[in-house]
Amino acid sequence: MNEKNATLETTIEALVEGKKYAVLREILNTLQPADIAILFEDLDNSILPLLFRLLPKELAAATFVEMGADEQELLIKGFSDAELKEVVDELYVDDAVDIVEEMPSNVVKRILAQSAPDVRKMINEILKYPEDSAGSIMTTEFVELKEHMTCEDAIKRIRRTGVDKETIYTCYVTDPNRKLIGCLTLKDILLADEDSIIGDLMETDIISVTTTDDQEKVANVLSKYDLNAVPVVDTEHRLVGIVTFDDALDVIEEEATEDIEKMAAITPSDKPYLRMSILELWKARIPWLLILMVSATFTGYIISSFETALARWVALTAFIPMLMDTGGNSGSQASVTVIRSLSIGDIEFKDFFKVVFKEFRVAILCAVTLGVVNFFKIRIIDVMLLGNTAVTVPVTFVVCFTLAATVICAKVVGCMLPLVANKLGLDPAVMASPLLTTVVDAISLLIYFQVATAFLGI
Amino acid sequence: MNEKNATLETTIEALVEGKKYAVLREILNTLQPADIAILFEDLDNSILPLLFRLLPKELAAATFVEMGADEQELLIKGFSDAELKEVVDELYVDDAVDIVEEMPSNVVKRILAQSAPDVRKMINEILKYPEDSAGSIMTTEFVELKEHMTCEDAIKRIRRTGVDKETIYTCYVTDPNRKLIGCLTLKDILLADEDSIIGDLMETDIISVTTTDDQEKVANVLSKYDLNAVPVVDTEHRLVGIVTFDDALDVIEEEATEDIEKMAAITPSDKPYLRMSILELWKARIPWLLILMVSATFTGYIISSFETALARWVALTAFIPMLMDTGGNSGSQASVTVIRSLSIGDIEFKDFFKVVFKEFRVAILCAVTLGVVNFFKIRIIDVMLLGNTAVTVPVTFVVCFTLAATVICAKVVGCMLPLVANKLGLDPAVMASPLLTTVVDAISLLIYFQVATAFLGI
Repeated sequence: MNEKNATLETTIEALVEGKKYAVLREILNTLQPADIAILFEDLDNSILPLLFRLLPKELAAATFVEMGADEQELLIKGFSDAELKEVVDELYVDDAVDIVEEMPSNVVKRILAQSAPDVRKMINEILKYPEDSAGSIMTTEFVELKEHMTCEDAIKRIRRTGVDKETIYTCYVTDPNRKLIGCLTLKDILLADEDSIIGDLMETDIISVTTTDDQEKVANVLSKYDLNAVPVVDTEHRLVGIVTFDDALDVIEEEATEDIEKMAAITPSDKPYLRMSILELWKARIPWLLILMVSATFTGYIISSFETALARWVALTAFIPMLMDTGGNSGSQASVTVIRSLSIGDIEFKDFFKVVFKEFRVAILCAVTLGVVNFFKIRIIDVMLLGNTAVTVPVTFVVCFTLAATVICAKVVGCMLPLVANKLGLDPAVMASPLLTTVVDAISLLIYFQVATAFLGI
Repeated sequence: MNEKNATLETTIEALVEGKKYAVLREILNTLQPADIAILFEDLDNSILPLLFRLLPKELAAATFVEMGADEQELLIKGFSDAELKEVVDELYVDDAVDIVEEMPSNVVKRILAQSAPDVRKMINEILKYPEDSAGSIMTTEFVELKEHMTCEDAIKRIRRTGVDKETIYTCYVTDPNRKLIGCLTLKDILLADEDSIIGDLMETDIISVTTTDDQEKVANVLSKYDLNAVPVVDTEHRLVGIVTFDDALDVIEEEATEDIEKMAAITPSDKPYLRMSILELWKARIPWLLILMVSATFTGYIISSFETALARWVALTAFIPMLMDTGGNSGSQASVTVIRSLSIGDIEFKDFFKVVFKEFRVAILCAVTLGVVNFFKIRIIDVMLLGNTAVTVPVTFVVCFTLAATVICAKVVGCMLPLVANKLGLDPAVMASPLLTTVVDAISLLIYFQVATAFLGI
């Protein structure tokens, strides 16, 4: 795919230079909106407005939605009011809102000014909802039916109004107060008899979300029940919008990326990596690096307190990295498993003891395996092969025992931290993963020196 | 939701005991298949067959699909052949395949024996495709139209055959050799004139995948182009199946979980956490812990080589954890960002130099910030507040300089490893994240001791 883009790029730039606009239009017409958007990113900004104007109206709007905020802004600034109106008219309301949210306020004013009054009202309505809520990602364009309609009426209505709806495949039935009383699919309607009454066909056990529900919850509902779209209702159960599966796909991908970033001590960002400036990347990464660096004072302090002992038993120092890393890895295995299970809804706080007990048993198995393997590894590799005779048998015991104890502590702490964070309403991914290393480091060093003091008499 | 399940559970168990089957049927009837499946997991296994038999046929089949493999097996073993046939008849082919893949071979034989001959053929067909390929997750039940049909014909055909199709919302047009020549949505058909010809309405630039494409690619295509379903073709471009958005949702969630697990040095598993046995968890976690533990021999060896120097400058030891952790965190920020960007398709190997140059500049910014802050942190916290006077100004310089150099190396290595792994056809998440710590540890220690030797003359 990308090899194709690379040559296409140069072809297009050559055609622009040669003013072969008819050929360009033909080429662009064969591409999908998402592909044109990617192509536009790679092309020189100066030729974008020209190329964009070559697109037929509908393709132009669909492409516009797929483009990055920077390119969108560039184009809008170059649009005449008439051109802007043409694009805005073709957008679904939820896409228009996504764009409006990314733009500086003077651009927003222009977009709203060019929207039809009813669209402007819908955009303003959606903009009121908190970020990442169901209200903020929903669309207000859906098929609304009435209970008394026949299937024939319903199909006529869909035929008449469907062109502007984001999906016509799930239809919603409301009462005179716009309360949601039922839903049914186009499949139900089409496969039923023409005279059947909508009220008899509709499903009344409706799965819905409310405007303030988090987008992650909405995506999980769509995915759990394999829905095409989910209705969004207000506090009085009035139908105000729907969220479709394509938005859920984006949310699931976005939330997974966010979790991954947080686990790696990065402040999440909506922007794709290549679009982030050096300064933005620095801002996303430096806070946790600083916090974790300063919190390492603690481990440093523990080592300093045992300086005299370490000076006498220098062999002990060589195992500090191994102990810290294995502890860290063991802990993050547990914490990452729990964080992910929490976020996809596999476990909840009520499973606390089940999880801790499970991790404790796994930890014992891992600890024994690692301890035993490490004992032979030290005796064979470090002592016999590398000739490090300072590592006596008692020192080996101290290391292996510490290793086993550290693994157990790390796994138990690793699974508890995210669960507790979740219970306290904190973000499990942030609170657990980056902080865990520091906690486990300190634990492993404390165990190490306590055990060394006891066994080696230092 | 879960609080509700908890009480519902006890109610149901009480009703079973009291033999109130009519009431039970009413209750189950109000629930969604996915919720019944969750409920069944929490209930005692002995009452499952009874409860399952209370479900109406369609709900029973839908619930069966949502259940875990253990419960499915339990039920199948208790089914009479007639009961098994009833459930199998209601399943979509792709769901049947999913179930068959999880079952022991004697159960598979019984399922196939009870399937209608055409269904059995389809199941066998799909089972031939490699795991995680488009062929293995597709369904063979789709709406197929011919070019010459009118919209009226098409709707009639959909009405007649639609009930068995997984989706009727995207229709595929094939030529007499079953080659895919076009596709269009039900919306296109319904909103067009009744006499319009399908061949004129259909889209001929078709986005399709082939049977051997990876499921992650299929999900990305569905998500990128916001498709309801994507057609799967064989090497001769004959239409053999479709993959619908609900499967893509599952794949995206599954692949994200897999990436996260690999980054945390865990062998990925399809099973939800709470269903994995202690031994399975141990098996998923111990290999990387062992590999990483043994590879830490390397860092231990570096420290041992500088034992004499460390014995003289014991203050240096206290900073080893901070240097290794900050290096590790910096590196994993870069590697995780690159791994995730690779997997969602934001970057590719051709961006190698762009990425490395970007990371290099971010690294310099981070290195300078961390170095400067650390200098003041050591002078103020460690020396003045904690009174650790062994940390002289030259030692502080050595630590801060090493820190900066480590951060730069860590970020550059961190972004290069996954890209190289990807190019070599290895899994970036496995090759990059768990291994990175060991590499960065060794780098930071080598820099540390070299710098110390040069500056402190040891």
